[in-house]
Amino acid sequence: MQLKKFFSVVAAIGVAVTLAQAEEIKLSKEEMAKANKIYFDRCAGCHGMLRKGALGPWIRPEHHKGKKGEVPGTKELGTKALVDIIYNGTPGGMPGWGKSGELTKEEVELMAKYVQLPPVAPPEKSLSDMKKSWKVLVPVSKRPKKPETKRDWQNYFGVVLRDVGKIAIIDGVTKEVVSVVPSGFATHILRMSKSGRYMYAIGRDGKAEVIDLWMKKPQVVAEIRVCNDARSIDTSKYKGYEDKYAVVGCYWPPSIVTLKGDTLEPIQIVSTASYTYDTGEFTREARVASIVANHHKPEWVINIKETGQVWLYNYEDPRNPTIHMLMAERYLHDGGWDLSKRYFLVAANARNKIVAVDTEKGKIAAIIPTGGVKPHPGRGANINHPKYGPIWCTGHIGSNDIVCIGTDPKNHPKYAWKVVADIKLPGEGGGNLFIKTHPKCKYIFADRPVNPNRKLQTQFYVIDKKSLKVVKTVPIPKEYLKPAKTKDGKEVKARGPVHFEFNKDGTEVWTSIWGNKLEPTPILVYDANTLKLKKVIKDPRIITPTGKFNVYNTMNDIY
Amino acid sequence: MQLKKFFSVVAAIGVAVTLAQAEEIKLSKEEMAKANKIYFDRCAGCHGMLRKGALGPWIRPEHHKGKKGEVPGTKELGTKALVDIIYNGTPGGMPGWGKSGELTKEEVELMAKYVQLPPVAPPEKSLSDMKKSWKVLVPVSKRPKKPETKRDWQNYFGVVLRDVGKIAIIDGVTKEVVSVVPSGFATHILRMSKSGRYMYAIGRDGKAEVIDLWMKKPQVVAEIRVCNDARSIDTSKYKGYEDKYAVVGCYWPPSIVTLKGDTLEPIQIVSTASYTYDTGEFTREARVASIVANHHKPEWVINIKETGQVWLYNYEDPRNPTIHMLMAERYLHDGGWDLSKRYFLVAANARNKIVAVDTEKGKIAAIIPTGGVKPHPGRGANINHPKYGPIWCTGHIGSNDIVCIGTDPKNHPKYAWKVVADIKLPGEGGGNLFIKTHPKCKYIFADRPVNPNRKLQTQFYVIDKKSLKVVKTVPIPKEYLKPAKTKDGKEVKARGPVHFEFNKDGTEVWTSIWGNKLEPTPILVYDANTLKLKKVIKDPRIITPTGKFNVYNTMNDIY
Repeated sequence: MQLKKFFSVVAAIGVAVTLAQAEEIKLSKEEMAKANKIYFDRCAGCHGMLRKGALGPWIRPEHHKGKKGEVPGTKELGTKALVDIIYNGTPGGMPGWGKSGELTKEEVELMAKYVQLPPVAPPEKSLSDMKKSWKVLVPVSKRPKKPETKRDWQNYFGVVLRDVGKIAIIDGVTKEVVSVVPSGFATHILRMSKSGRYMYAIGRDGKAEVIDLWMKKPQVVAEIRVCNDARSIDTSKYKGYEDKYAVVGCYWPPSIVTLKGDTLEPIQIVSTASYTYDTGEFTREARVASIVANHHKPEWVINIKETGQVWLYNYEDPRNPTIHMLMAERYLHDGGWDLSKRYFLVAANARNKIVAVDTEKGKIAAIIPTGGVKPHPGRGANINHPKYGPIWCTGHIGSNDIVCIGTDPKNHPKYAWKVVADIKLPGEGGGNLFIKTHPKCKYIFADRPVNPNRKLQTQFYVIDKKSLKVVKTVPIPKEYLKPAKTKDGKEVKARGPVHFEFNKDGTEVWTSIWGNKLEPTPILVYDANTLKLKKVIKDPRIITPTGKFNVYNTMNDIY
Repeated sequence: MQLKKFFSVVAAIGVAVTLAQAEEIKLSKEEMAKANKIYFDRCAGCHGMLRKGALGPWIRPEHHKGKKGEVPGTKELGTKALVDIIYNGTPGGMPGWGKSGELTKEEVELMAKYVQLPPVAPPEKSLSDMKKSWKVLVPVSKRPKKPETKRDWQNYFGVVLRDVGKIAIIDGVTKEVVSVVPSGFATHILRMSKSGRYMYAIGRDGKAEVIDLWMKKPQVVAEIRVCNDARSIDTSKYKGYEDKYAVVGCYWPPSIVTLKGDTLEPIQIVSTASYTYDTGEFTREARVASIVANHHKPEWVINIKETGQVWLYNYEDPRNPTIHMLMAERYLHDGGWDLSKRYFLVAANARNKIVAVDTEKGKIAAIIPTGGVKPHPGRGANINHPKYGPIWCTGHIGSNDIVCIGTDPKNHPKYAWKVVADIKLPGEGGGNLFIKTHPKCKYIFADRPVNPNRKLQTQFYVIDKKSLKVVKTVPIPKEYLKPAKTKDGKEVKARGPVHFEFNKDGTEVWTSIWGNKLEPTPILVYDANTLKLKKVIKDPRIITPTGKFNVYNTMNDIY
């Protein structure tokens, strides 16, 4: 939420900020434990463990004089105002946790009190803490020497079953569920090793695991909890280092952890706590937003949210890493490669910009204002356009822009690092989370699950890669959006489609319904050319599917 | 102080650790301010700002379970035991602050209480805080275009006047005091730019300054306070970068600050907070112990005390630095180059080892146990020995060993990274701080100012570079050791000689008497071959001279 908006919200709810009387806040041990858990699950992502803010604002008890102006402390706001904000949300992007039914009235009240207390010191995690949680479930010597399956395992889809803490492996040809394995809490992403054999998952609780896809029935072969909160994982992809190392980017403790690729044995921890690139302020909570492996160098591109730094992390000698620190923009979030895989494009969402990192030269090639609000590329979508040459596109959470940027300074210098197209999604507001394409498909697909409008939320958007226009909107058939019922008979709506993934040859596109864990939720498989619904994957085990990762496309960074 | 010794001290003073009763400690605002200052000046160096220990032990209120065993909290020890330790010191190396007269009885009592309170959160320092203190006193355009003096300015000595916060520039030929300029608090070292024109000073208060030696009367031309506590400064020495950048290594906030060489305008801050190289524990207070500029690469060698990491810091693009992190040993302290300037040798004083860093290959060449206790090389002393080839020597604070190590794996592999000589200083105990030689001189000179024995403390030791034996001890004439008198008539003794420096051609060696600021203190100039006292530099302005830095020898790393 932008500060200006935050203040207007505060004003709108009629609170005399400076006059709010100080209440004595006391929480029982049980209340504290509950609030800590809710804070970690719902709030820390945007406001930070130390509550100093990132995508969301500062929410510490004391008043804050920041670069952009003053922010009242939560003590100044007081319980009543805070309840209102937490219950109803704000136009700036704060979800209405009460209104949506995700928190009860009592929980909203609890959180309004909790944020008026000083932040709890989050735990540190040492190498020996990590090692205590490290388990090699299937030793390397007992794993297959070649694929045990006759299925096309490179066309498997790893599907995150977010709210039940599991991962499903689905055959991209037969659509059969090959295996369902346990994972960490709310797995954020899946990544593949260079060979594709190993699938890596990282949970929001910092638990990493590796699944062996060569097994007849893939299963978790090693796991370790490397941190308390994490969002990213990748592996070493450079020639000679294939499948050798894995790397986890932690939110808390803010750090980079290198692991052995096959066993997840920890090798090294490097702190990302440092100084903001622009104002030079020390930032303990400098979180790793995303990591991507370079195919052309023994290097990971590591994007650090709060400090606005991109670290090119050389893993040739993983105990003694070399880090090239590039000053970029804030707050770095996620991103993807351009078509040539020389440039990595990452969102700086607080500044509505895209940072293009030239990994060949090891420098920032450009920082491009998108014109939209809160760019959220996922990995973005690449097009080799007849006029503009290679371009890369991103959606936005805060506005209805799908924006494409020229990425070929050599052969298309006129368009390089410029917005060449701003494709407006129909209707008001943003709410897009993911776009996706495949070189063999003529379309880009876009979701819009966090748009408040029910109609806009429950359809997806098809963009023609040549005309750069929305050529079709595809509503999800009502039968797949039926509300689920809680034990006490309350109806809970499913959101619309979220996230897309193509099959190996780019002929099908899969999307999932953002349901809840009360009932199984379908995955819908569309023909990527005719846009016909070809298949609905329903299985009692498939509950809350979110991210879907085709092995071949993920190992080769095809998007 | 080693933990074992610490416990024996605790036992010796008859305190039942676990039974010490909890007292309520209360200090007034004025007492807190005074104690904070004393803590920063006297205690933080060894115990750390966060009081988690480094060279000295943990001194926080709560009990500590460390790798090496348990340490009682200061609350457990109680005021009486703490007063005893602070007043009398310990055999492990803790100075007797009361006994020596450096703290009054009341101050000792105050500190005994202070350390039972939780540590005060030390202040952060942002880029804008830094910039507020930045002053260009003489703009570059108004500085001389060539030397304005007819003196041999490359034979100047910069002399730290420690306790009066000044620096004297003394002509190495005439011994005249050319200039006395103000500096930060207790300047730790002086370093020269590659050309020798600029002399850099760093105070214990983190104030950096640059002095222009081309001026007829050298003066401070720019200053900035980059941190709250610092120990090291150096400049860019690689071809094409001569005199271009300066770098400060901070104790608090633990960081590396790059500055423009001529104006000290801050360019970049990088935090050194990270994980200990061995146990992988997060260490907020990971202090920069020393920095040295590589002559063969655009790189600084940065030694981080608590984490035991050596960072090879490439400054080609100073806003976007590249850091190669080498895992070494704890706690890194100071060190110097070998004769070839390929290897940097640095003390890991908690482990009684020397780390040899191969800066050509960017790796640790060897980690060598010295056999002595608490190696303290300063920059060490190099010898091209007829039998062992190039060797590098270091003294020790905790034992009477001057130890030499082979540094030429190519031509003298038999001796490389091995202790080839352990030269015992006569008499009991250590207390050596500095040794020094010059390629043209046949001797190494060694001081011993922190040995408790008055006789051993007040003489210096002459080692023959060929026989590797102490061939002479030279007592300081009594007339230069006369006690000074305080206002109330109390006599305060001067310690013996401390620190050596050669003149440009290596024919003279200078040492200073470690006096106090009540009276001027002499610098003694000896003939480096005959060992005759040639000249005594006395001047009303020369008070508490400690480190002496010949411009030519320092800019070329001759030792």
